[in-house]
Amino acid sequence: MTTHRNPIRRIWAEGHAVLNGWLSMDSPFSAEIMASAGYDSVTIDIQHGAVDYNGMLPMLQAMRASGVATMARASWLDPGAIMKILDAGAWGVICPMINTRAEAERLVSCVRYPPKGNRSFGPTRANFALGSDYADFADDEVVCLAMVETAEAMANLDEIVRTPGLDGVYVGPADLTFGLTGRRYRTGFDREEPEMIEAIQRVIAAAHGAGIRLGLHNGTAAYAAKGVSWGADLVTVSNDVRLLAQGAQHSVAEFRKLVGGAPAMTGSAPVSGY
Amino acid sequence: MTTHRNPIRRIWAEGHAVLNGWLSMDSPFSAEIMASAGYDSVTIDIQHGAVDYNGMLPMLQAMRASGVATMARASWLDPGAIMKILDAGAWGVICPMINTRAEAERLVSCVRYPPKGNRSFGPTRANFALGSDYADFADDEVVCLAMVETAEAMANLDEIVRTPGLDGVYVGPADLTFGLTGRRYRTGFDREEPEMIEAIQRVIAAAHGAGIRLGLHNGTAAYAAKGVSWGADLVTVSNDVRLLAQGAQHSVAEFRKLVGGAPAMTGSAPVSGY
Amino acid sequence: MTTHRNPIRRIWAEGHAVLNGWLSMDSPFSAEIMASAGYDSVTIDIQHGAVDYNGMLPMLQAMRASGVATMARASWLDPGAIMKILDAGAWGVICPMINTRAEAERLVSCVRYPPKGNRSFGPTRANFALGSDYADFADDEVVCLAMVETAEAMANLDEIVRTPGLDGVYVGPADLTFGLTGRRYRTGFDREEPEMIEAIQRVIAAAHGAGIRLGLHNGTAAYAAKGVSWGADLVTVSNDVRLLAQGAQHSVAEFRKLVGGAPAMTGSAPVSGY
Amino acid sequence: MTTHRNPIRRIWAEGHAVLNGWLSMDSPFSAEIMASAGYDSVTIDIQHGAVDYNGMLPMLQAMRASGVATMARASWLDPGAIMKILDAGAWGVICPMINTRAEAERLVSCVRYPPKGNRSFGPTRANFALGSDYADFADDEVVCLAMVETAEAMANLDEIVRTPGLDGVYVGPADLTFGLTGRRYRTGFDREEPEMIEAIQRVIAAAHGAGIRLGLHNGTAAYAAKGVSWGADLVTVSNDVRLLAQGAQHSVAEFRKLVGGAPAMTGSAPVSGY
Amino acid sequence: MTTHRNPIRRIWAEGHAVLNGWLSMDSPFSAEIMASAGYDSVTIDIQHGAVDYNGMLPMLQAMRASGVATMARASWLDPGAIMKILDAGAWGVICPMINTRAEAERLVSCVRYPPKGNRSFGPTRANFALGSDYADFADDEVVCLAMVETAEAMANLDEIVRTPGLDGVYVGPADLTFGLTGRRYRTGFDREEPEMIEAIQRVIAAAHGAGIRLGLHNGTAAYAAKGVSWGADLVTVSNDVRLLAQGAQHSVAEFRKLVGGAPAMTGSAPVSGY
Amino acid sequence: MTTHRNPIRRIWAEGHAVLNGWLSMDSPFSAEIMASAGYDSVTIDIQHGAVDYNGMLPMLQAMRASGVATMARASWLDPGAIMKILDAGAWGVICPMINTRAEAERLVSCVRYPPKGNRSFGPTRANFALGSDYADFADDEVVCLAMVETAEAMANLDEIVRTPGLDGVYVGPADLTFGLTGRRYRTGFDREEPEMIEAIQRVIAAAHGAGIRLGLHNGTAAYAAKGVSWGADLVTVSNDVRLLAQGAQHSVAEFRKLVGGAPAMTGSAPVSGY
Repeated sequence: MTTHRNPIRRIWAEGHAVLNGWLSMDSPFSAEIMASAGYDSVTIDIQHGAVDYNGMLPMLQAMRASGVATMARASWLDPGAIMKILDAGAWGVICPMINTRAEAERLVSCVRYPPKGNRSFGPTRANFALGSDYADFADDEVVCLAMVETAEAMANLDEIVRTPGLDGVYVGPADLTFGLTGRRYRTGFDREEPEMIEAIQRVIAAAHGAGIRLGLHNGTAAYAAKGVSWGADLVTVSNDVRLLAQGAQHSVAEFRKLVGGAPAMTGSAPVSGY
Repeated sequence: MTTHRNPIRRIWAEGHAVLNGWLSMDSPFSAEIMASAGYDSVTIDIQHGAVDYNGMLPMLQAMRASGVATMARASWLDPGAIMKILDAGAWGVICPMINTRAEAERLVSCVRYPPKGNRSFGPTRANFALGSDYADFADDEVVCLAMVETAEAMANLDEIVRTPGLDGVYVGPADLTFGLTGRRYRTGFDREEPEMIEAIQRVIAAAHGAGIRLGLHNGTAAYAAKGVSWGADLVTVSNDVRLLAQGAQHSVAEFRKLVGGAPAMTGSAPVSGY
Repeated sequence: MTTHRNPIRRIWAEGHAVLNGWLSMDSPFSAEIMASAGYDSVTIDIQHGAVDYNGMLPMLQAMRASGVATMARASWLDPGAIMKILDAGAWGVICPMINTRAEAERLVSCVRYPPKGNRSFGPTRANFALGSDYADFADDEVVCLAMVETAEAMANLDEIVRTPGLDGVYVGPADLTFGLTGRRYRTGFDREEPEMIEAIQRVIAAAHGAGIRLGLHNGTAAYAAKGVSWGADLVTVSNDVRLLAQGAQHSVAEFRKLVGGAPAMTGSAPVSGY
Repeated sequence: MTTHRNPIRRIWAEGHAVLNGWLSMDSPFSAEIMASAGYDSVTIDIQHGAVDYNGMLPMLQAMRASGVATMARASWLDPGAIMKILDAGAWGVICPMINTRAEAERLVSCVRYPPKGNRSFGPTRANFALGSDYADFADDEVVCLAMVETAEAMANLDEIVRTPGLDGVYVGPADLTFGLTGRRYRTGFDREEPEMIEAIQRVIAAAHGAGIRLGLHNGTAAYAAKGVSWGADLVTVSNDVRLLAQGAQHSVAEFRKLVGGAPAMTGSAPVSGY
Repeated sequence: MTTHRNPIRRIWAEGHAVLNGWLSMDSPFSAEIMASAGYDSVTIDIQHGAVDYNGMLPMLQAMRASGVATMARASWLDPGAIMKILDAGAWGVICPMINTRAEAERLVSCVRYPPKGNRSFGPTRANFALGSDYADFADDEVVCLAMVETAEAMANLDEIVRTPGLDGVYVGPADLTFGLTGRRYRTGFDREEPEMIEAIQRVIAAAHGAGIRLGLHNGTAAYAAKGVSWGADLVTVSNDVRLLAQGAQHSVAEFRKLVGGAPAMTGSAPVSGY
Repeated sequence: MTTHRNPIRRIWAEGHAVLNGWLSMDSPFSAEIMASAGYDSVTIDIQHGAVDYNGMLPMLQAMRASGVATMARASWLDPGAIMKILDAGAWGVICPMINTRAEAERLVSCVRYPPKGNRSFGPTRANFALGSDYADFADDEVVCLAMVETAEAMANLDEIVRTPGLDGVYVGPADLTFGLTGRRYRTGFDREEPEMIEAIQRVIAAAHGAGIRLGLHNGTAAYAAKGVSWGADLVTVSNDVRLLAQGAQHSVAEFRKLVGGAPAMTGSAPVSGY
């Protein structure tokens, strides 16, 4: 029986779900703090987070000592950017808006070296951070996840999940709700509408039917636990921005309640909004 | 009756205590999030925070729109550094480890223009951020707080609080406990030892006796409220690092409890430790 | 009658032309200075400016307090990059080199949420900077401008301007002159050749015929005023790089003239050249 | 006979091979050090290096005084990114993974202004760094190199090298070996397998047959010299990461040998691995 | 007759006054632009500018190619900081608030190597930027200027100017006016009050009497020319912040005048204020 | 027998000399590379290196995973700066230019918490990087080294080495040579003059006589080994800047020798100069 270097694969091999943290702020120290909080993996969100490659690099470095598996969500299906994420030493990549089998294949080709794919060779930091024999194990260890979050992707779901080399699909419930139901419901995660729960469960079934993994983005631990009970293999709970904003708002509210008097500021606090 | 530009002075003039947020991470976005959480003022900690002048500047810029009063805690009684904080557009400065009347006078001289002090003229960003007539109101609006946190400072307390031009003293209970009791108690804020409560109350009385303000550093809203009940005019509650670390740890713990199974990481989580 | 949150739409609704500033340097302080100069909107140029996403973010933060509408020019029709610009809290995006109706449609799809487009949901900073209800108004408020600056775009002009969801076209006279006349004339803005004036006016007419807005890039206030007289709805005048270089060169020249003696340096000063 | 501004073209015109340095670390000071070491040109590797546009800009500035020709390797055939590299003042661009004639043509169109290509006009820093008359000479001076490093590119070699406006092809032996032989050999540069030597020589012959230049990536000066003897016009030797890692490892090994005792750390030193 | 490496000394040896530019923004590109404008020297203002060591370094690198002499104004008489400025490759240092002979001597001791002073040896970047034989010429070439800008300094003027190793004194008229006249006059440069003109001329006479140079900070070229006519050896005119702000405001005003209608923003434009 | 957390103390306890690497470039990746090369400890040079606090922080983070002991050399005996270095998670601090017993005591007081010293409490990152119980072990584990490098320090040597709480003295041979012999010899490390060897050995004897450690700065492994044979407990060999510059120069020279032809650049390569 093989031992995996990538903590995500090791946890999966042990039969558990992966608890994933999420970083949307450009701060190595914030990343280091999050990486010490007990998550199995932590993902830097280059798509919607306020961070790009330049911010990601020192964040990956700051998390290396923690032992968590680091991933990044790419901003788009952009080969140069996805390969840079991996060369920087991420253990996995999540790619948004994969809508067709062709796009899923293109994603895989960015993540695997020839002959499995077309990833260009030059793991400059990965060689230092993950091992000098990175070239030997990268294809077996790096995790490649495609986001299913549009009506088009749902229509092509069975083809997408069967893409050779794809390790899993990742569901973004906010976009998926937009894509399947338009403006019918409020935006956000942790959907309770029966049609959305059914859609998420359909993706889980399709992924598992194809022998790949299912990741789910969640706003709360409670919903993530529900996702795990549905079979999700990797669950993200909240992110640094929301944790900080909520923590600060609760602290302020507690003080205002104790001391009396209205807050000096009438808030534009957006936490509940997204 | 005068209207103050500095929100801190305005709130004091209205008879309220100021609720102060605290920033220890080098991140403009984190600062922007904290500035929207409802605090009256937010202080960037250049002393113990993981941030220096270079990090402070974009954080001040990112908080400008929020309307909170921005302050910085200097790393030491260093004239060049304190003047740079003010030129960058902070509404106030907190200076650590003021132990004597002479040190308090030197602090004031860094904060006030001649003839009140020796601050050198060149409010480069303050002119843009706080007003093009900054030179006219700076001496009346900028807040100057000296930290009382050692046995020596306690011995010189009555002289320190009577320093002309000083707006208040700020109590750091962790250092004050170290300074007054050595290693007898665990380090940290929110002291419950009678001798420490007495010491804090003695500083409050001395400050108010001299007609100046009292600031108190706290770990929780509950203790801050207690501080206000004792007469504190400005209370800091927690900081971004602790809020984020605690939020993440609670989220992880909640998930682990729901899903079962031990955390993958055995934690070096330091939140309760300091 | 509706009140717009986006200052650009408000000014347009009031029947005025928008005066737009332009940022080509990577500096939050420079951005803050420019945002205080009296422009209605300020655009960060990620295409030709010496700045990318990483530089743009603190510049957007530094300009937030000013109340000007912030926009960015994307470097290319790249969905991930355009969505990141909007998630970062820009009120609008200008996209270069839109040459066909299909490209214009793809641009719009990056800017509008489903069902109008395919923008992925996650306005991380926009929620803090523009409002926690950003999801509700973004499609109505964000401004989407396509650059018409090639012969191909001129050939497809009527189709481009009728793209649903497009708010306007933006003319880059330097590229348009290159594209229409090759190397016949010197490069630069503020074209005086009759064929170029005619081309610009033809774009204005086409835009207005389709009920959308027209933006024009200018080197001088005088030419911008001429553009407004032709019907332009948004005019850019100069940029930070040229303003600084020209200001410095004029100051040096004035001194050299007064003091006598030649400049120590024989200049590579490029201001008049582009 | 013309004098070239671009040092690369000048050296080629004088009949010599260009010795190229390679930068994979994000550090202006490292770039300044490398630019003083005696290379003819220095290339910033945005593809596999741990650096992006934001890091490249101050590195170009730091190397300007040295007189070396600066180039950058783009991360992919991305028009916006390639044009930004040139606007930033690089004397040339190397584009990875050019596999077809169409891709080579698209590369050239990004590098040349109309009517030769579609490069958008706005050489913001190039005007300061390379000359205020940049628009006049850019098309003649900027060097455009396409990487040939896949089986597909080898199949299309004769068409690629004949792309009008292309100055040369650049061989990446690590990827080419992957592409032509899969996993048969270890990854890396400085190939000694007859089939790889033959492949490299075939590219040289094709390039020269089409009247363009040949660049070769090497791990050692010895192999680069061999490449020159085969006809290579530009040879890269090692990079900053390897030079630093090797220098440090040799220094440590020398000390450990002299002092005795095993190294404290058992190394993950990756130098020989890639 | 000796040839100086430091352009400031060369110009002085040729009998001319040095025209000095001034940088208050943290931007390497802004520095590069200013360095190409025709100044003889350019000074980075670490005291009142919005920039510290971290910002200064890439600015020095970006200006190296221009050939201007680079200096920095230290934030205070801080030995570690002053030596870091010189190690970074600045040709000179200006130190604010030198009020006594002892302070002037301490300044000199930071700038000169033993036995003339106590500068610690390690010119890490200076060795690359200014010459590998830097140790041999540094003591003869680096320029050391002390600011005279307080009443105390005026009282000690004759002793200060006779400090061995000091190259000159630099007058900051804004602070000097504060120091000599308190709040009697508005703050700012370019003093027209007879008592201030007399004070400036007194410093010039004292400096020249001691055989050292005189530098003068000015807001306009006209006043700088006046200063040269009084004997000033180095004159600073305006700075990047003011040049940019004034340029932008004039451009906006010109447009508003031409197009009619009030500015959208009611300005906090601080240019005339300081 | 105690087990030390700080690798430096552990190695000393085991009876070995510590091999220390040295960082003078501001680059987290360079730091990560150096930390993987086999050194026991790595020191970031904030005094003469081209790096300050802002650069140090991500470098410390990037080295955390390597297990090497990280230290920093402060720029001066500045309490705020020294405490910031420790709060950032360095295992030790080296302070330059300690010339008297009083200065040595002041250094110790910055490094130890009360009652041993006056270090202010707030180990913000140290709590995450070194342990949440940092407050309990910091005084026992953090290493405090004073540089002896002037004639004055030599005169006060016996008093300095007996300063309670000081762990060792660190010899900077370049400055010490300057200080003891003025301009008699060339600057640099690895002194062969008998009087300098004698001076170094005298410091070793004094340190060991007082029961503290001796550190020695060296240019080569050979000299460092000699230092160990004299009794040195910690030896630094070269630094990143020299290793990179030498590696690049040797590589270029090797190529030029093989290919013939003179280097295109006539070098300002400073390696041998300092």
